[in-house]
Amino acid sequence: MSWNTFGRVLRFTTWGESHGPGLGAVLDGCPPRIALSEEDIQPFMDARRPGQSKFTTQRQEADLVKIMSGVFEGQTTGTPIHLMIENTDQRSKDYSEIAQAYRPGHADYAYDAKYGIRDYRGGGRSSARETAARVAAGAVARLIIPEVTITAYVCELGGDAIDRDNIDYGQITQNPFFCPDAEAAKRWEGLVDDARLAGSSLGAIVECVATGVPAGWGAPVYAKLDSELAAAMMSINATKGVEIGDGFEAARLTGEQNADPMRPAPEGSNDGAPQFLANHAGGTAGGISTGQPVVCRVAFKPTSSILTPVESITSDGEATEVRTKGRHDPCVGIRGTPVVEAMMALVLADQKLLHRAQTASG
Amino acid sequence: MSWNTFGRVLRFTTWGESHGPGLGAVLDGCPPRIALSEEDIQPFMDARRPGQSKFTTQRQEADLVKIMSGVFEGQTTGTPIHLMIENTDQRSKDYSEIAQAYRPGHADYAYDAKYGIRDYRGGGRSSARETAARVAAGAVARLIIPEVTITAYVCELGGDAIDRDNIDYGQITQNPFFCPDAEAAKRWEGLVDDARLAGSSLGAIVECVATGVPAGWGAPVYAKLDSELAAAMMSINATKGVEIGDGFEAARLTGEQNADPMRPAPEGSNDGAPQFLANHAGGTAGGISTGQPVVCRVAFKPTSSILTPVESITSDGEATEVRTKGRHDPCVGIRGTPVVEAMMALVLADQKLLHRAQTASG
Amino acid sequence: MSWNTFGRVLRFTTWGESHGPGLGAVLDGCPPRIALSEEDIQPFMDARRPGQSKFTTQRQEADLVKIMSGVFEGQTTGTPIHLMIENTDQRSKDYSEIAQAYRPGHADYAYDAKYGIRDYRGGGRSSARETAARVAAGAVARLIIPEVTITAYVCELGGDAIDRDNIDYGQITQNPFFCPDAEAAKRWEGLVDDARLAGSSLGAIVECVATGVPAGWGAPVYAKLDSELAAAMMSINATKGVEIGDGFEAARLTGEQNADPMRPAPEGSNDGAPQFLANHAGGTAGGISTGQPVVCRVAFKPTSSILTPVESITSDGEATEVRTKGRHDPCVGIRGTPVVEAMMALVLADQKLLHRAQTASG
Amino acid sequence: MSWNTFGRVLRFTTWGESHGPGLGAVLDGCPPRIALSEEDIQPFMDARRPGQSKFTTQRQEADLVKIMSGVFEGQTTGTPIHLMIENTDQRSKDYSEIAQAYRPGHADYAYDAKYGIRDYRGGGRSSARETAARVAAGAVARLIIPEVTITAYVCELGGDAIDRDNIDYGQITQNPFFCPDAEAAKRWEGLVDDARLAGSSLGAIVECVATGVPAGWGAPVYAKLDSELAAAMMSINATKGVEIGDGFEAARLTGEQNADPMRPAPEGSNDGAPQFLANHAGGTAGGISTGQPVVCRVAFKPTSSILTPVESITSDGEATEVRTKGRHDPCVGIRGTPVVEAMMALVLADQKLLHRAQTASG
Repeated sequence: MSWNTFGRVLRFTTWGESHGPGLGAVLDGCPPRIALSEEDIQPFMDARRPGQSKFTTQRQEADLVKIMSGVFEGQTTGTPIHLMIENTDQRSKDYSEIAQAYRPGHADYAYDAKYGIRDYRGGGRSSARETAARVAAGAVARLIIPEVTITAYVCELGGDAIDRDNIDYGQITQNPFFCPDAEAAKRWEGLVDDARLAGSSLGAIVECVATGVPAGWGAPVYAKLDSELAAAMMSINATKGVEIGDGFEAARLTGEQNADPMRPAPEGSNDGAPQFLANHAGGTAGGISTGQPVVCRVAFKPTSSILTPVESITSDGEATEVRTKGRHDPCVGIRGTPVVEAMMALVLADQKLLHRAQTASG
Repeated sequence: MSWNTFGRVLRFTTWGESHGPGLGAVLDGCPPRIALSEEDIQPFMDARRPGQSKFTTQRQEADLVKIMSGVFEGQTTGTPIHLMIENTDQRSKDYSEIAQAYRPGHADYAYDAKYGIRDYRGGGRSSARETAARVAAGAVARLIIPEVTITAYVCELGGDAIDRDNIDYGQITQNPFFCPDAEAAKRWEGLVDDARLAGSSLGAIVECVATGVPAGWGAPVYAKLDSELAAAMMSINATKGVEIGDGFEAARLTGEQNADPMRPAPEGSNDGAPQFLANHAGGTAGGISTGQPVVCRVAFKPTSSILTPVESITSDGEATEVRTKGRHDPCVGIRGTPVVEAMMALVLADQKLLHRAQTASG
Repeated sequence: MSWNTFGRVLRFTTWGESHGPGLGAVLDGCPPRIALSEEDIQPFMDARRPGQSKFTTQRQEADLVKIMSGVFEGQTTGTPIHLMIENTDQRSKDYSEIAQAYRPGHADYAYDAKYGIRDYRGGGRSSARETAARVAAGAVARLIIPEVTITAYVCELGGDAIDRDNIDYGQITQNPFFCPDAEAAKRWEGLVDDARLAGSSLGAIVECVATGVPAGWGAPVYAKLDSELAAAMMSINATKGVEIGDGFEAARLTGEQNADPMRPAPEGSNDGAPQFLANHAGGTAGGISTGQPVVCRVAFKPTSSILTPVESITSDGEATEVRTKGRHDPCVGIRGTPVVEAMMALVLADQKLLHRAQTASG
Repeated sequence: MSWNTFGRVLRFTTWGESHGPGLGAVLDGCPPRIALSEEDIQPFMDARRPGQSKFTTQRQEADLVKIMSGVFEGQTTGTPIHLMIENTDQRSKDYSEIAQAYRPGHADYAYDAKYGIRDYRGGGRSSARETAARVAAGAVARLIIPEVTITAYVCELGGDAIDRDNIDYGQITQNPFFCPDAEAAKRWEGLVDDARLAGSSLGAIVECVATGVPAGWGAPVYAKLDSELAAAMMSINATKGVEIGDGFEAARLTGEQNADPMRPAPEGSNDGAPQFLANHAGGTAGGISTGQPVVCRVAFKPTSSILTPVESITSDGEATEVRTKGRHDPCVGIRGTPVVEAMMALVLADQKLLHRAQTASG
């Protein structure tokens, strides 16, 4: 089946294709009496919006979100919030070739194998345009978890990693790469521009840090915070890996190296939360938050649409070659950054609501 | 809440703690008329079973599975299959110390923060003993997908990777590490033995390959095969990362390097499936299987239980130091291998059944 | 939480309020390659549409459905189908009084007790206008089960039952009451007109019969066809009871009277299905369809909005009296008829898809 | 598929057949730190237990519940609670005939049509023995809602209704019929005895009242309290109808007759809850509890197993006649009473936990 809903008690369902009339998210389970207007959502849409620099696709979309339900006199009512975004700059002619030939690395062949039909215009449902709906839903989710601050950034692009001593969150919005390291951002300009001009593409790794998550969110066994985050991130287009905390590096450490020692809460602590001397675990233990920052990293493959011809087959099974023209992101991971943030917000908000149901009865 | 069920239409629910009377899995949604007896399950239990070499925990568990329901005259009936395993070698006295002090890296603190109570005996519900129930359920799942062959192995241990030119699946059962590279297996003996004697621990990476998966399993958007696998694998104890195909390496490739070119089915092909010239994607595109081998890798952190004292706090918030004695796996990733296989089987069987529901109506 | 999704593998989520910009249903899990256009849906919308006779609310809504996604070149693609309906005739001023006072029998007080906020315009989310989205989704569901014919009708209105010997399905569309008995329809004109002129209201019982359902749909234990239908019907506004087959009457029969004897398939039978000599059970046994017509009955209470003053309280807890002016159905059960049909279609289509997943493996 | 789980955040999964080694319920989502032992559960099991009078089946089952997980040192831990009950008095030989012939009114034919296999011993999974697991789970659910008192009783048996002026809850446990009217109980002795001796059977209607439910439980739209209760009750074996409040009678009332007028909370009220002057609605409005008693009624058909021969077919499709010998309840509705109570408890506890998640954020 098609399974277009995510979440357990805060659940959102997205609909829409790249070249249909629009797309949207129905967010169900949002608590009532949260102040909400389109202005709370739009900045996040704008961060993800295409066409803002030469480093992303030149498709121009206003990505204006309209709240269709669930809000009354400026407040959520507890009923489903439908967030709708019109498609305005679909150029169906750009995509006529892919009706016949399967673009390698894209979902074209797999969709046809599954469904026997596909909306080939811009990838249809498999287009990363679907993520606009997630960003809209994520903006609402943030309002459910005001105690949490979520920051995502590209920490590696085309194999070129940031210098961790150079991280300055203030830089993230100062360059077109969501890069927290000003030096790296400069280098990446050249990298991405070269790829773009060559019709090539690059991968990227996005890191996301959530601070302010209290201890106790997440749940054994199949709703572990790690598992929920992994599912969320790996549902984003073009992702191929996810790590929590040290991730794959942890597999190379000894138990001593990987330990996160704890100390009693410092004198004068507000919340009495213990102090951790390290965070190899990325903020979870046994699938439950520990009060440390929740840290995850997501690997985005290079955009599959490239100008270099690649061997492929037609929908009739004949040999062909595909070069993908059109307006593509040379590095899809860049615009994936706000999507990663949105998914982090959606998972955490869901877990917060679930956790609430778990306090002692009586 | 506690969320101990996994799967969409083939769903299993596990119950049980490390030191309770036993544990089990209720597998719901298994198709009827599949031949099934305890003998089909036991070999997989035995592969995961503790105490079989000096490289794993010395806890002795027979791990005999009993089919409690859902099978009649040797065949599944379509009703829930309850698989139960008794605990026989719980030594509660071994664990008395952890009642008072939080073991760093374990779920102790997080569980207390969440629930205000924890079954501290052997980690209770957070113990990796829960995975025995998954292995039992996974053995049944395999029977639903006879067309698929699943092979998992440790591909890196303590930072020491196998030589991929040296992979021989026949070796996997010939050493205590599920290692497909006989040379590496020899080196790992020393590595693990040193760690064990030092009361230290090591991480590992487990790779799992499923061949025979036809094109078309998986589903947009939030039930992508990648997403389901990520959730499944990251729900296993001690996992901190998951990759599909090239995973994080893909983020370092260009679009050209990462392409998986396709060719028409070779002459005389049985199934008419196209030929892929590479498998960077790990067998999925757009979240749907392509007919190539499904490949995933899972990072296991080093066992948190080590003899070296680590700073921690008591359940009353006082400073203390914890050294964990008792019977632990020096490298929990090793015995994680059959669990990874089981989760792969459970995800694929679920997706196969879902896919069946999706053929054209009429 | 708010839980606005129904179904197991064919799942629809509705959004929208009575006086917002519109409402809709996202139908997920519809199989691909089913011919679908707005023309397939509109007739069902028209049957439910308000303002068509003096016996229903005078609110005028075009109830034009727009397919926003999931259909490409006239066929379903397997991706979510979003069906949207604009609200065009909201008169918010009609409802200003109910902002202050709780209408007895309506959801006003309960919503405020739950959410601490409510969209009081026309009942907001609790308005029967939500059912327009169900009727749209139900029209698509029918296309998934072309083998099934669904017919609903009012079998009792204001305590006046039809004569079962007089049932003629051809009559159902010939009167404004969905009444299959021409005589009863005539009597009901007077009944409903009197109630309407008096500002009073009447209850009704809707019966729904689905023929062509093969044996084997439904599933033990908590997805019994009976249970699914009961949940579906009791989610419709103003319903207070549901029966399958003889329902409450069955509780008054002996085992002999209630028996549904079976005989071998008659000579020349196409499908080899056994012959049943009675259908007290209403087409199910053990929660699974038997191949007989699936029969259910749904009780609708009288519309709560009446002109007679009823004691109530204000949202500040003060005593008041409420008389509800405005445009209401004197008998909400009448327009409930197409909604009952839609829910029957949605449940059966869901069960058909589920059943498909259950055939033997291999 | 088989769908053996019920509930949204408090979810239970049952397993087991009539003549297998046992049966059980895995209850997931129970809050932690609730005192729980087998003694809390056993009285409810005993109420449902067979073989306690000549008016129920003579099968003798101790129905001893064993808590297998989820409880530590006498308190729930928030992890799954597995409640297991051994089968001790299966006499497989009693049921050998039904291997060949379909018992009319039973699930035999439908199961075979669906699965192509059935455990014919005592009805297998379709046996009412499954309800023992529900009663066990329901006993735990009650502890989650200590503010609620649930009382179920038979209000009509074989068409003979209680006198509502004669209701005395103290009588319910004083007769073998869960009858609150001592006069009716006397009459029913004769009724049931006659049916029993004649090898016939009778239907019954069970009424269930839950007091103490605060306003605000339940949720629009597809998780309405009415809908959840309807699904719960109609999943019980032999049920054919469910009503909330006045139910089908409400369909015969006018809006004036059906109104539930409200008044401000009486002076000195503890909770400030408004006073209702009637409860036609049965404690819900718009699917959400109003603070009034939640009232539902469930129709049980007469036991299908009767001594009178009924025409049927063999599993090979040949004509035959079936008379069902063996140990059956002459009126299955009687022992359905504790099951109805259990389902009410499970639904309300689930909704209480859900409601908790819905309070304002911050």
